[in-house]
Amino acid sequence: MQRNSFYNRDIVSIKDIDKQDLERVFSYTDKLRNFTPNEKTELGRGRVLGSVFYEPSTRTRMSFEAAMASLGGSSLGISDPKSSSIEKGESLADTIRIMDLYSDIVVLRHPLDGSSRFACELSRNPVINGGSGSEEHPTQAMLDLYTIIKEKRRIDGLNIGMIGDLKYGRTVYSLLYGLSYYDVKIHLISPVSLKIRMESLYEVKNKLRIQEHTTLEDILPKLDIIYVTRIQRERFPDLQEYENVKGSYVIDIEVLKKAKSDVSIMHPMPRMDEISQSVDNTTNAIYFKQAAYGKDLRAALLALILNENIS
Amino acid sequence: MQRNSFYNRDIVSIKDIDKQDLERVFSYTDKLRNFTPNEKTELGRGRVLGSVFYEPSTRTRMSFEAAMASLGGSSLGISDPKSSSIEKGESLADTIRIMDLYSDIVVLRHPLDGSSRFACELSRNPVINGGSGSEEHPTQAMLDLYTIIKEKRRIDGLNIGMIGDLKYGRTVYSLLYGLSYYDVKIHLISPVSLKIRMESLYEVKNKLRIQEHTTLEDILPKLDIIYVTRIQRERFPDLQEYENVKGSYVIDIEVLKKAKSDVSIMHPMPRMDEISQSVDNTTNAIYFKQAAYGKDLRAALLALILNENIS
Amino acid sequence: MQRNSFYNRDIVSIKDIDKQDLERVFSYTDKLRNFTPNEKTELGRGRVLGSVFYEPSTRTRMSFEAAMASLGGSSLGISDPKSSSIEKGESLADTIRIMDLYSDIVVLRHPLDGSSRFACELSRNPVINGGSGSEEHPTQAMLDLYTIIKEKRRIDGLNIGMIGDLKYGRTVYSLLYGLSYYDVKIHLISPVSLKIRMESLYEVKNKLRIQEHTTLEDILPKLDIIYVTRIQRERFPDLQEYENVKGSYVIDIEVLKKAKSDVSIMHPMPRMDEISQSVDNTTNAIYFKQAAYGKDLRAALLALILNENIS
Repeated sequence: MQRNSFYNRDIVSIKDIDKQDLERVFSYTDKLRNFTPNEKTELGRGRVLGSVFYEPSTRTRMSFEAAMASLGGSSLGISDPKSSSIEKGESLADTIRIMDLYSDIVVLRHPLDGSSRFACELSRNPVINGGSGSEEHPTQAMLDLYTIIKEKRRIDGLNIGMIGDLKYGRTVYSLLYGLSYYDVKIHLISPVSLKIRMESLYEVKNKLRIQEHTTLEDILPKLDIIYVTRIQRERFPDLQEYENVKGSYVIDIEVLKKAKSDVSIMHPMPRMDEISQSVDNTTNAIYFKQAAYGKDLRAALLALILNENIS
Repeated sequence: MQRNSFYNRDIVSIKDIDKQDLERVFSYTDKLRNFTPNEKTELGRGRVLGSVFYEPSTRTRMSFEAAMASLGGSSLGISDPKSSSIEKGESLADTIRIMDLYSDIVVLRHPLDGSSRFACELSRNPVINGGSGSEEHPTQAMLDLYTIIKEKRRIDGLNIGMIGDLKYGRTVYSLLYGLSYYDVKIHLISPVSLKIRMESLYEVKNKLRIQEHTTLEDILPKLDIIYVTRIQRERFPDLQEYENVKGSYVIDIEVLKKAKSDVSIMHPMPRMDEISQSVDNTTNAIYFKQAAYGKDLRAALLALILNENIS
Repeated sequence: MQRNSFYNRDIVSIKDIDKQDLERVFSYTDKLRNFTPNEKTELGRGRVLGSVFYEPSTRTRMSFEAAMASLGGSSLGISDPKSSSIEKGESLADTIRIMDLYSDIVVLRHPLDGSSRFACELSRNPVINGGSGSEEHPTQAMLDLYTIIKEKRRIDGLNIGMIGDLKYGRTVYSLLYGLSYYDVKIHLISPVSLKIRMESLYEVKNKLRIQEHTTLEDILPKLDIIYVTRIQRERFPDLQEYENVKGSYVIDIEVLKKAKSDVSIMHPMPRMDEISQSVDNTTNAIYFKQAAYGKDLRAALLALILNENIS
């Protein structure tokens, strides 16, 4: 049997993953979801995931831990820099090198761009970028794409809106790079001060058809997907502007009434006020499914990285 | 084989568990204690326990983790709301829903009454109440009853004293509900200001024979069990009252001398000064055994919830 | 087959472990390193390591967790006294006793001398000293010796320098006791105020040939091993002295130039400024290998403690 293309491979950026690779992960995720618990545990038994989180992230870290546990493996690591050797002043390089020695795969979450690439240079074992800097969160992009395919049965031809803080949200950039493999129309909806940084999209600008909006209203009826992100008060230099805009980026039942009946609402979670709880029980809300697909996709990815002869 | 009555079931309140159910758990706990480590790991391999603890509780959380590990499964979760998405402002509902997606069973500890019932509504998978509000701690009640049976060989006919802070201790209420299935005499010993809230016992008042006392002395010679709970200084509106009473609720060697020679001392742990360390090495002290039985009973309960065809 | 001499055994002090025992662990570590992941998981499946850390120690705790995970077992415990029952005021004795009931082996890190011996008295299951007081860290000494053997192919005949804070570093004392089984020359290099406490070495003084130095320079060309430890600013009563000496205890490329070409640099980690990063990529730097050997040796030790019939 052929070696799978993810075996022993670093996952640093969505830019490194071509469409064929994406489809391999999606197809193996489908397969894994039909495995029994016992079959899954053949894929990671005795293997260890080492997580190094310089920023707190309950969602991403627990999703990886749950994925690893479902494969019969274990997780250990640093979830809070304050209670670790990092606090004693250990360098990122040393922390990565040691975690690499203690585990079979390292997941790194770090505020600096390039941190994961740096970690790969230091590690014997594969490194997964669990979110770095302001632009990279490759496994989030993969699970977002997988969610769209599962719920919409296709990505091509969709009108995809992304709303909220598009300037600082790393999931948005990674997802846009991922969407560049598909034939979609992108609608970016944000206050002027939180517009996407176009210079960060230069590699995909020509492949993506992007329209920018400051209000949701006009474009709403056309959207198949609304990908919602948090707007954090502290991002606004002017609090008055925050007070002015925050309401207009909330998805609630009134918004759904003006949208396509089958519009799907996504969110990387955790969700605050930007999606009203009244939306939760509609069929449009797919953000919890998204979290579940995320665990399955990460389990599939870990399995592919750890096992040479599966696909 | 018949489906066991705990398969896939929520454990919210001791009130939902009838005597036959209790005996099923006790009998399966007996069975499990004779399994080899390898036999146990057949019961939870690749399965995940998700703990969500809004109040710190080393004992309960580690007991569940140890139980799950003995079954070959894993645990993950939130042990400290301060370092998680909860801190970012995520709602209880979202936290539960996501943890449910990441795990096979959720254990919830929460300060509010009704929190576990609420969690069940939101979860696909079973939820276990790991302590909620001021009254519910069903697995503690189960392990307390199991401990009595193992150490006393019966529950019927016993004189059971419960001493300390009976107003705020949730273990006391759950245990009293559990004891209502048996023919026991209950002696409640507490300062006036920490007396049990009788309104919380209305459902079992007619089934339990309860006598209340403010001092241990008179009733001491009759007791077969003394169930000791912590008296927390901060519960007293008047610190002078605390200083007056605290000494009279301490179990030490002098107290044991006036008690039945085979009286058993229990405590839900952690224990502070309310049981003197001089008692630890007597055969009357069964509070450490109680912790050990607790791990075994929780392992049995988890196994029954996870596996349809065992009993 | 004969019962192995580590089966069910406490590891409190390097002084309790004779040379034959050391060689048994080393030889089983060699063996284990050639096992497949699946073979390793036969050695600890369903078994639980309970860690009780009263001092933070990411390195030691994660090394044990990684070792246990590689054997297919689990870890749980208290890594931060502040978020546990310890904070509520629970005694060391109770914490140990409960952890003992929840696990198959307890690892204890505690600031007091004698804490591990005390823990053994209270536990049914084996206790491993994960560092106590100012002198004992037996598994660190074992892994240090193992590292020397693997990298130098022998211990006898070597000139071993130990540099830095020799007064307060517990690893130094444990390693010196371990080295007393071998025919080595020891060179202790430290500022006067951080000299080794000779009274703590009285049991091995006659077996070890020790020379003390205040500077590295003169002895440097003779050394086969330089074991570097941290110099902590807060150890100096006089900060001016700290400023005077700190630079002279740093290992960098300039120091390597004056040393034997095959000198090996060791460090118990975490490393701060006492070894320059420029040394990391030389073949002299073996401190990362040391961490990796450490995980393997601890896995071997855990396996020997848990399994009667291996060797």
